[in-house]
Amino acid sequence: MQKKIALACLTLAVTGSALAQQLMRPEEMIQTRQAGYRFMAWNMGKIKANLEGEYNAQQVQAAATAIAGIAGSGMGALYGPGTEKDIGNLKTRVKPEFFQEMPNVGKLATDFNNAAANLAKVAATGDKAAVQKAFADTGSTCKACHDKYRME
Amino acid sequence: MQKKIALACLTLAVTGSALAQQLMRPEEMIQTRQAGYRFMAWNMGKIKANLEGEYNAQQVQAAATAIAGIAGSGMGALYGPGTEKDIGNLKTRVKPEFFQEMPNVGKLATDFNNAAANLAKVAATGDKAAVQKAFADTGSTCKACHDKYRME
Repeated sequence: MQKKIALACLTLAVTGSALAQQLMRPEEMIQTRQAGYRFMAWNMGKIKANLEGEYNAQQVQAAATAIAGIAGSGMGALYGPGTEKDIGNLKTRVKPEFFQEMPNVGKLATDFNNAAANLAKVAATGDKAAVQKAFADTGSTCKACHDKYRME
Repeated sequence: MQKKIALACLTLAVTGSALAQQLMRPEEMIQTRQAGYRFMAWNMGKIKANLEGEYNAQQVQAAATAIAGIAGSGMGALYGPGTEKDIGNLKTRVKPEFFQEMPNVGKLATDFNNAAANLAKVAATGDKAAVQKAFADTGSTCKACHDKYRME
Protein backbone atom coordinates (compact mmCIF):
# COMPACT_ATOMS: atom_id res chain seq x y z
CA MET A 1 0.00 0.00 0.00
CA GLN A 2 2.77 2.38 0.96
CA LYS A 3 4.49 1.49 -2.27
CA LYS A 4 1.33 2.30 -4.23
CA ILE A 5 0.97 5.67 -2.51
CA ALA A 6 4.63 6.41 -3.14
CA LEU A 7 4.15 5.54 -6.80
CA ALA A 8 1.05 7.74 -7.00
CA CYS A 9 2.97 10.60 -5.42
CA LEU A 10 5.82 10.11 -7.84
CA THR A 11 3.39 10.12 -10.76
CA LEU A 12 1.81 13.31 -9.48
CA ALA A 13 5.20 14.91 -9.00
CA VAL A 14 6.28 13.99 -12.50
CA THR A 15 2.97 15.21 -13.92
CA GLY A 16 3.30 18.45 -11.98
CA SER A 17 6.81 18.93 -13.21
CA ALA A 18 5.76 18.11 -16.76
CA LEU A 19 2.95 20.65 -16.50
CA ALA A 20 5.33 23.32 -15.27
CA GLN A 21 7.52 22.62 -18.25
CA GLN A 22 4.46 22.30 -20.51
CA LEU A 23 5.65 18.89 -21.69
CA MET A 24 8.45 20.58 -23.59
CA ARG A 25 10.83 18.51 -25.62
CA PRO A 26 14.55 19.14 -25.02
CA GLU A 27 14.75 20.78 -28.47
CA GLU A 28 12.05 23.24 -27.47
CA MET A 29 13.82 24.04 -24.21
CA ILE A 30 17.07 24.80 -26.02
CA GLN A 31 15.30 26.88 -28.67
CA THR A 32 13.34 28.79 -26.06
CA ARG A 33 16.33 29.62 -23.87
CA GLN A 34 18.30 30.70 -26.94
CA ALA A 35 15.33 32.87 -27.92
CA GLY A 36 15.44 34.53 -24.52
CA TYR A 37 19.17 35.24 -24.76
CA ARG A 38 18.86 36.54 -28.31
CA PHE A 39 16.07 38.88 -27.38
CA MET A 40 17.97 40.15 -24.35
CA ALA A 41 21.10 40.67 -26.47
CA TRP A 42 19.10 42.79 -28.91
CA ASN A 43 17.89 44.95 -26.08
CA MET A 44 21.33 45.19 -24.47
CA GLY A 45 22.58 46.37 -27.87
CA LYS A 46 19.91 49.06 -28.01
CA ILE A 47 20.89 50.36 -24.58
CA LYS A 48 24.55 50.37 -25.62
CA ALA A 49 23.71 52.33 -28.79
CA ASN A 50 21.75 54.84 -26.71
CA LEU A 51 24.60 55.28 -24.25
CA GLU A 52 27.08 55.80 -27.08
CA GLY A 53 24.86 58.00 -29.22
CA GLU A 54 21.72 60.01 -28.77
CA TYR A 55 20.02 59.01 -25.53
CA ASN A 56 16.35 58.13 -25.82
CA ALA A 57 15.20 57.49 -22.25
CA GLN A 58 11.97 55.85 -23.36
CA GLN A 59 13.72 53.35 -25.63
CA VAL A 60 16.25 52.53 -22.90
CA GLN A 61 13.51 52.01 -20.35
CA ALA A 62 11.57 49.72 -22.71
CA ALA A 63 14.71 47.71 -23.48
CA ALA A 64 15.69 47.38 -19.82
CA THR A 65 12.15 46.33 -18.90
CA ALA A 66 12.23 43.59 -21.53
CA ILE A 67 15.59 42.32 -20.28
CA ALA A 68 14.45 42.29 -16.65
CA GLY A 69 11.23 40.53 -17.59
CA ILE A 70 13.03 37.79 -19.48
CA ALA A 71 15.73 37.45 -16.83
CA GLY A 72 13.09 37.00 -14.14
CA SER A 73 10.92 34.54 -16.03
CA GLY A 74 12.43 31.34 -14.65
CA MET A 75 14.73 30.31 -17.48
CA GLY A 76 16.24 27.62 -15.25
CA ALA A 77 13.30 25.43 -16.31
CA LEU A 78 14.78 25.45 -19.83
CA TYR A 79 17.83 23.44 -18.77
CA GLY A 80 16.00 20.15 -18.29
CA PRO A 81 17.31 16.64 -18.99
CA GLY A 82 18.46 16.14 -22.57
CA THR A 83 19.36 19.80 -23.08
CA GLU A 84 23.02 19.45 -22.09
CA LYS A 85 24.24 18.74 -25.61
CA ASP A 86 23.52 19.34 -29.30
CA ILE A 87 20.38 17.71 -30.70
CA GLY A 88 20.93 17.05 -34.39
CA ASN A 89 21.48 20.39 -36.08
CA LEU A 90 20.43 22.28 -32.98
CA LYS A 91 23.62 23.38 -31.28
CA THR A 92 23.98 24.45 -27.68
CA ARG A 93 27.04 26.20 -26.30
CA VAL A 94 26.37 25.27 -22.69
CA LYS A 95 29.30 23.47 -21.04
CA PRO A 96 28.76 20.21 -19.12
CA GLU A 97 29.99 21.95 -15.95
CA PHE A 98 26.82 24.04 -15.96
CA PHE A 99 24.79 20.98 -14.97
CA GLN A 100 27.31 19.82 -12.39
CA GLU A 101 27.68 23.08 -10.51
CA MET A 102 24.10 24.08 -9.84
CA PRO A 103 24.72 26.05 -6.61
CA ASN A 104 27.20 28.29 -8.43
CA VAL A 105 24.95 28.56 -11.48
CA GLY A 106 22.12 29.57 -9.16
CA LYS A 107 24.28 32.27 -7.62
CA LEU A 108 25.28 33.67 -11.03
CA ALA A 109 21.64 33.59 -12.15
CA THR A 110 20.56 35.49 -9.03
CA ASP A 111 23.29 38.08 -9.59
CA PHE A 112 22.09 38.53 -13.16
CA ASN A 113 18.42 38.80 -12.17
CA ASN A 114 19.23 41.41 -9.52
CA ALA A 115 21.41 43.43 -11.88
CA ALA A 116 18.76 43.35 -14.63
CA ALA A 117 16.01 44.37 -12.19
CA ASN A 118 18.20 47.23 -11.00
CA LEU A 119 18.91 48.30 -14.60
CA ALA A 120 15.17 48.48 -15.29
CA LYS A 121 14.63 50.47 -12.10
CA VAL A 122 17.41 52.91 -12.92
CA ALA A 123 16.35 53.21 -16.58
CA ALA A 124 12.92 54.37 -15.42
CA THR A 125 14.54 57.45 -13.84
CA GLY A 126 16.07 58.54 -17.16
CA ASP A 127 19.44 59.23 -15.48
CA LYS A 128 21.94 58.37 -18.21
CA ALA A 129 25.01 58.21 -15.94
CA ALA A 130 23.23 55.87 -13.54
CA VAL A 131 22.09 53.72 -16.47
CA GLN A 132 25.69 53.58 -17.71
CA LYS A 133 26.74 52.04 -14.40
CA ALA A 134 23.77 49.69 -14.06
CA PHE A 135 24.30 48.59 -17.67
CA ALA A 136 27.96 47.79 -17.02
CA ASP A 137 27.00 45.90 -13.87
CA THR A 138 24.46 43.84 -15.81
CA GLY A 139 26.98 43.12 -18.56
CA SER A 140 29.42 41.86 -15.92
CA THR A 141 26.87 39.36 -14.63
CA CYS A 142 26.26 38.12 -18.20
CA LYS A 143 29.98 37.74 -18.73
CA ALA A 144 30.53 35.93 -15.41
CA CYS A 145 28.29 33.10 -16.59
CA HIS A 146 29.48 33.12 -20.21
CA ASP A 147 33.14 32.92 -19.15
CA LYS A 148 32.52 29.89 -17.00
CA TYR A 149 29.71 27.97 -18.65
CA ARG A 150 29.52 28.95 -22.33
CA MET A 151 31.68 27.42 -25.04
CA GLU A 152 33.43 29.79 -27.44
CA MET B 1 25.55 74.79 -50.23
CA GLN B 2 21.95 73.96 -49.41
CA LYS B 3 22.39 70.74 -51.31
CA LYS B 4 25.46 69.92 -49.21
CA ILE B 5 23.62 70.60 -45.98
CA ALA B 6 20.69 68.51 -47.14
CA LEU B 7 23.06 65.68 -47.96
CA ALA B 8 24.74 65.98 -44.57
CA CYS B 9 21.35 65.87 -42.88
CA LEU B 10 20.35 62.83 -44.88
CA THR B 11 23.59 61.09 -43.94
CA LEU B 12 22.98 61.91 -40.27
CA ALA B 13 19.40 60.66 -40.50
CA VAL B 14 20.47 57.40 -42.11
CA THR B 15 23.26 56.97 -39.55
CA GLY B 16 20.80 57.63 -36.73
CA SER B 17 18.36 55.10 -38.12
CA ALA B 18 21.14 52.57 -38.60
CA LEU B 19 22.26 53.09 -35.01
CA ALA B 20 18.73 52.57 -33.72
CA GLN B 21 18.58 49.28 -35.55
CA GLN B 22 22.16 48.45 -34.53
CA LEU B 23 23.08 47.84 -38.14
CA MET B 24 21.06 44.64 -38.07
CA ARG B 25 20.94 42.47 -41.13
CA PRO B 26 17.45 41.39 -42.27
CA GLU B 27 18.26 37.83 -41.13
CA GLU B 28 18.98 39.10 -37.63
CA MET B 29 15.74 41.09 -37.55
CA ILE B 30 13.71 38.02 -38.52
CA GLN B 31 15.55 35.82 -36.01
CA THR B 32 15.14 38.38 -33.25
CA ARG B 33 11.42 38.93 -33.79
CA GLN B 34 10.88 35.18 -33.94
CA ALA B 35 12.85 34.88 -30.69
CA GLY B 36 10.53 37.40 -29.06
CA TYR B 37 7.40 35.56 -30.18
CA ARG B 38 8.82 32.19 -29.12
CA PHE B 39 9.68 33.49 -25.68
CA MET B 40 6.26 35.08 -25.28
CA ALA B 41 4.56 31.85 -26.40
CA TRP B 42 6.47 29.91 -23.74
CA ASN B 43 5.26 32.32 -21.09
CA MET B 44 1.70 32.33 -22.39
CA GLY B 45 1.84 28.52 -22.15
CA LYS B 46 2.96 28.74 -18.52
CA ILE B 47 0.08 31.03 -17.64
CA LYS B 48 -2.35 28.68 -19.40
CA ALA B 49 -0.95 25.70 -17.46
CA ASN B 50 -1.34 27.62 -14.20
CA LEU B 51 -4.93 28.57 -15.01
CA GLU B 52 -5.79 24.98 -15.88
CA GLY B 53 -3.85 23.36 -13.04
CA GLU B 54 -2.36 24.44 -9.75
CA TYR B 55 -2.14 28.24 -9.65
CA ASN B 56 1.26 29.64 -8.74
CA ALA B 57 0.76 33.39 -8.56
CA GLN B 58 4.48 34.12 -8.55
CA GLN B 59 5.11 32.10 -11.72
CA VAL B 60 2.15 33.73 -13.45
CA GLN B 61 3.33 37.20 -12.48
CA ALA B 62 6.86 36.48 -13.74
CA ALA B 63 5.51 35.10 -17.03
CA ALA B 64 3.15 38.03 -17.56
CA THR B 65 5.94 40.51 -16.78
CA ALA B 66 8.18 38.88 -19.39
CA ILE B 67 5.41 39.02 -22.01
CA ALA B 68 4.63 42.67 -21.28
CA GLY B 69 8.32 43.55 -21.38
CA ILE B 70 8.83 41.90 -24.76
CA ALA B 71 5.58 43.30 -26.16
CA GLY B 72 6.59 46.82 -25.18
CA SER B 73 10.17 46.64 -26.46
CA GLY B 74 9.55 48.13 -29.88
CA MET B 75 9.43 45.01 -32.04
CA GLY B 76 8.25 47.10 -34.98
CA ALA B 77 11.93 47.89 -35.61
CA LEU B 78 12.39 44.20 -36.48
CA TYR B 79 10.25 44.48 -39.62
CA GLY B 80 12.74 46.48 -41.64
CA PRO B 81 13.41 46.29 -45.39
CA GLY B 82 14.35 42.83 -46.58
CA THR B 83 12.44 41.05 -43.80
CA GLU B 84 9.22 40.59 -45.75
CA LYS B 85 10.16 37.19 -47.17
CA ASP B 86 12.23 34.07 -46.53
CA ILE B 87 16.01 34.49 -46.59
CA GLY B 88 17.56 31.20 -47.65
CA ASN B 89 16.61 28.61 -45.06
CA LEU B 90 15.26 31.24 -42.72
CA LYS B 91 11.50 31.21 -43.13
CA THR B 92 9.12 33.95 -42.12
CA ARG B 93 5.37 33.52 -41.92
CA VAL B 94 4.56 37.21 -42.22
CA LYS B 95 2.16 38.01 -45.06
CA PRO B 96 2.96 40.78 -47.59
CA GLU B 97 -0.17 42.63 -46.43
CA PHE B 98 1.56 43.31 -43.11
CA PHE B 99 3.89 45.78 -44.80
CA GLN B 100 1.13 47.38 -46.85
CA GLU B 101 -1.32 48.02 -44.02
CA MET B 102 0.84 49.74 -41.43
CA PRO B 103 -1.92 51.83 -39.82
CA ASN B 104 -3.91 48.68 -39.09
CA VAL B 105 -0.79 46.78 -37.98
CA GLY B 106 -0.03 49.66 -35.62
CA LYS B 107 -3.51 49.47 -34.16
CA LEU B 108 -3.26 45.70 -33.60
CA ALA B 109 0.18 46.14 -32.04
CA THR B 110 -1.14 48.81 -29.68
CA ASP B 111 -4.06 46.58 -28.70
CA PHE B 112 -1.62 43.77 -27.95
CA ASN B 113 0.73 46.01 -25.94
CA ASN B 114 -2.14 47.34 -23.86
CA ALA B 115 -3.56 43.87 -23.23
CA ALA B 116 -0.14 42.50 -22.23
CA ALA B 117 0.51 45.44 -19.90
CA ASN B 118 -2.89 44.88 -18.32
CA LEU B 119 -2.20 41.15 -17.94
CA ALA B 120 1.02 41.94 -16.06
CA LYS B 121 -0.79 44.44 -13.85
CA VAL B 122 -3.58 41.99 -13.05
CA ALA B 123 -1.15 39.10 -12.52
CA ALA B 124 0.60 41.14 -9.83
CA THR B 125 -2.62 41.08 -7.78
CA GLY B 126 -2.71 37.28 -7.73
CA ASP B 127 -6.43 37.26 -8.58
CA LYS B 128 -6.84 34.10 -10.66
CA ALA B 129 -10.27 34.96 -12.09
CA ALA B 130 -9.07 38.40 -13.20
CA VAL B 131 -5.96 36.82 -14.75
CA GLN B 132 -8.17 34.37 -16.62
CA LYS B 133 -9.99 37.28 -18.26
CA ALA B 134 -6.85 39.37 -18.94
CA PHE B 135 -5.16 36.28 -20.37
CA ALA B 136 -8.07 35.63 -22.74
CA ASP B 137 -8.05 39.29 -23.78
CA THR B 138 -4.32 39.11 -24.52
CA GLY B 139 -4.76 35.90 -26.49
CA SER B 140 -7.44 37.60 -28.59
CA THR B 141 -5.03 40.40 -29.54
CA CYS B 142 -2.40 37.82 -30.57
CA LYS B 143 -4.99 36.02 -32.66
CA ALA B 144 -6.26 39.20 -34.32
CA CYS B 145 -2.82 39.78 -35.84
CA HIS B 146 -2.10 36.10 -36.59
CA ASP B 147 -5.41 35.68 -38.41
CA LYS B 148 -4.76 38.64 -40.66
CA TYR B 149 -1.00 38.76 -41.14
CA ARG B 150 0.49 35.33 -40.42
CA MET B 151 0.63 32.50 -42.94
CA GLU B 152 -0.58 29.08 -41.80
